[in-house]
Amino acid sequence: MIEISPIGVVSSPLVSAASAPRQGDEGAPDAWLEFDAAVATGLADLAPGQEVLVLTWFDRAARDVLAVRPRGDADRPLTGVFSTRSPDRPNPIGLHRVTVLEIDGLRVKVNNLEALDGTPIVDVKPVLGGVAER
Amino acid sequence: MIEISPIGVVSSPLVSAASAPRQGDEGAPDAWLEFDAAVATGLADLAPGQEVLVLTWFDRAARDVLAVRPRGDADRPLTGVFSTRSPDRPNPIGLHRVTVLEIDGLRVKVNNLEALDGTPIVDVKPVLGGVAER
Repeated sequence: MIEISPIGVVSSPLVSAASAPRQGDEGAPDAWLEFDAAVATGLADLAPGQEVLVLTWFDRAARDVLAVRPRGDADRPLTGVFSTRSPDRPNPIGLHRVTVLEIDGLRVKVNNLEALDGTPIVDVKPVLGGVAER
Repeated sequence: MIEISPIGVVSSPLVSAASAPRQGDEGAPDAWLEFDAAVATGLADLAPGQEVLVLTWFDRAARDVLAVRPRGDADRPLTGVFSTRSPDRPNPIGLHRVTVLEIDGLRVKVNNLEALDGTPIVDVKPVLGGVAER
């Protein structure tokens, strides 16, 4: 077993899966990432305008699901979850590509986040540019 | 606390961090993803030629590191880990964009994987195309 310690939590107007878009670029709202003080040093180089990958833990997902109908569409065949972005999967890690809009201490505002209010944040990574830029 | 259950393990010629490239597209070798039989249903729709995101757990990383010199370069300033791809970070989840080369039952061969031999696999996700293709 591997233990994840959340580093923060999502603060969002989205409170139920029924109201959430399926992906961030399908109309998801701005949201605040509220980080724990313990990880402040790790946040020091984030800045508005940067594109980052936010990793979350879909704490309301079903972990015993291995096949779904994509996008909840009854006309689509059952598909192995590793070929879908369904939140229901053995380890429900959410992967969100967003842009940093604003930083206020331990709070970071981002756009296009489809994670629900209260979702734990587990990591943030930069979007990698080409090899020469690294 | 959140518990991750690995779904498989990486089988790779890379056995030490010193021999591993820093990113998959910087000369990383082909590797086999060896999945547990329990998740076979989730793998059913993977096929050679697909681009996927493999999420791993860097089990040899240091979790108490919040700032690093990028790429281990002593000339670069200490940088918050959430602005780097360092494996050393509070929750050392690896994110690897690879292409599926071959499938043999529960074993999936991929290219460009910089994870070390024995690294736990925690999730696989498709690379998302444009909104109209979903």
